[in-house]
This record gives sequence, structure tokens and C-alpha cells, in this order.
Amino acid sequence: MARDVLFRNGVVRVVWRCDALFPDSCLDITMHSRTLHVDDLELICRHREAMFRDAGKGDDVLLPMTEHFRAWLGPRLRDGSYFGYVMVDEGVSVASIGLMLIDWPPHPLHPLQDKRGYVLNVFVEPEYRHRGLARELMRLADAEFAARGVGYAVLHATEKGRPLYQGLGWSGTAEMAKVLVGVPGGVAG
Amino acid sequence: MARDVLFRNGVVRVVWRCDALFPDSCLDITMHSRTLHVDDLELICRHREAMFRDAGKGDDVLLPMTEHFRAWLGPRLRDGSYFGYVMVDEGVSVASIGLMLIDWPPHPLHPLQDKRGYVLNVFVEPEYRHRGLARELMRLADAEFAARGVGYAVLHATEKGRPLYQGLGWSGTAEMAKVLVGVPGGVAG
Repeated sequence: MARDVLFRNGVVRVVWRCDALFPDSCLDITMHSRTLHVDDLELICRHREAMFRDAGKGDDVLLPMTEHFRAWLGPRLRDGSYFGYVMVDEGVSVASIGLMLIDWPPHPLHPLQDKRGYVLNVFVEPEYRHRGLARELMRLADAEFAARGVGYAVLHATEKGRPLYQGLGWSGTAEMAKVLVGVPGGVAG
Repeated sequence: MARDVLFRNGVVRVVWRCDALFPDSCLDITMHSRTLHVDDLELICRHREAMFRDAGKGDDVLLPMTEHFRAWLGPRLRDGSYFGYVMVDEGVSVASIGLMLIDWPPHPLHPLQDKRGYVLNVFVEPEYRHRGLARELMRLADAEFAARGVGYAVLHATEKGRPLYQGLGWSGTAEMAKVLVGVPGGVAG
């Protein structure tokens, strides 16, 4: 089954062209993208939690995380320091992406700039996957960062997301991390 | 040639025990560590530039980077949001490390916290290498983050630095990055 995915002016038209065997699978969906706004607090929390659940995390970690994430996100959605896009299908939000500009020391990869773009919480509802929505959200991210004058961006990929990002020109960095054991409020295990 | 490296209460005692062939190479250095302060602006700029020069970067990128980094660092040294340590040998600063707490959404690896520790600008003057100074600076970083209640920290390793960090319990992350071409102020190439 072939498909055409067309994006123009914030509207995505996904046309599934079925072959003779599955005439009933023909599907023609018209979606549009919009920017995130303050009323999306719960949507973003739900998408972030679902993203990590897909990656194998359990309620023991995710429920307290979401509680603290919600408190963190509220003021940042209101002041616009957390921004991004939602894909909407007939009034239903089916995918979203979060974006931030993070303060960063000028670096060989952005010697004149003290900001990096950060992409987070990329999530597409299961029944809307493999239709190019994440790709379109990432295109919107690139354009948004460029419009804000940011020339270097980072993200943390899940195992599933990595091939998409690689195909869009993203590559691994030399970041390393350490869990400092014995610090209250850190990871459980 | 064997050596003993002893650290206690911010004082490092490096004792080089020479073999019979090199009696003149006996060396006994007493160093101490101190916290960074506002007068270290130029030292930190020099160490950051030297670190990237060691990693193969050239003046075309480093000179404009340092100019912008200096302007970025000044207010952060003054307000204490950039902090760290210096190793001093008889009044001469021979190694340093920078630390920050970066705002970060609560995450499965730190579900109750909205901060990550960040380690940067780890540099040891060439003639002081292989004596455990970087290791001691990293130990001070762990302790400083723990004292500030931060349970998760990240850094970006150079090729040379990676084995040290791995030996201290740091491991690679899934961070990916992209240079957004055509954005003024981004990387030259």
C-alpha cells in the first residue's frame, strides 16, 4: 500500500492509496498543525508519560515524574519558554512536540550563540503512527528554531525514535551521564 | 616509576617515587584545591579554549567562541550559577573544573527533581597530567552536586577524556544533535 503525505501551510493531507486487495483500507485524512498553548498542559503531560511508557518505564517512576513535570511545565507554558506544536485530526490532538531554548555556553558548534534548541516529548498516538506525523513535527521544530535564530539543537532519542532522527540529519553526541547514588529525590534504581 | 597520590581535605600530595635510574626525578608536590571565584574569569576562558584546542579545534572557531564565552561567563561567575574548583600548585592554578545546575524537566532518571548537574571545562595543564588531578576534580564535582541535592549529572566528553569518565561511573547517553544550516551565528562548517 502506497501513501502520499503532503504538508503545506500547516495542513497535512495523508492519502492512503490502497491496492486492489484492500479496497476498504482507503483512507484520506486531513489534519492540521497548531502551536501549543497553555490549555495543552494535560495533553503534554499525557504524551510525555506515554512516550516513556512506550520506552519501558513503569508507573513507579512515571507517576511521580508526571506530578513533578506538571508543576514544572505550567509556568513554562505560560511564559512561552516551553513551546511546540500539536497535530490535530478533526478536533482531536493526536501528536505533539515540545521545544525549548536552553542556556548554553558558546561552544565550537555555536561559537556566537549562548542558546541551544532542545526537542522533547515527541509523541504520536499509536493509531496515527507511520504516517509521517513525527517527521512533520520535526520539520516544524527545525523551522521554529531557525526562525528564533538558533543554529544548533539537541534531543534525547528513545530506541524507537533514533532511526527517524538519523534520517533527518541528527547524529549521536559524546554526552555522558552519571546517577549520583544516595541523593534524595534521584532515581529509585 | 611509581607514584602515590593522596587527597585529603582539599589537599593533594603527589609523591613521585623514583627508581634507581632516575634519582633526580624525585618530586614531591603539595597542591590544594579551592573553589572558583570571580577573579578566575580569564583562567576559565583559557582552560576552555585549551581544552577544545587539545580536541583539534582551531583559532577560526575558538577565538570568537572565547569572546562570546567570556561575556556569557562573567555574570554567571558573579551570581554563582557557574561554580567549580581549581587545583593550585604553589600559587599557580594548574587545573580546573566548571559546574552548573541546569533547569531540566523531571525525568525517569530524576523524577522528583527539575535540575541536572552539568560538568564542563575540565582541564589539566599538560605538565600536570597523569597525576590524578582530573580524577580529584571529578570527585569534588560529585560531592558538590550531592551537597546541592542533585542526583543526576551530565557532561560532554572529549575523546581523550572518555576513559577517565567511564572509569568513574559515567556512561554514554542517547543524546543526538543537529546543526541547523543557514542560521547566522551557528557553526562555520
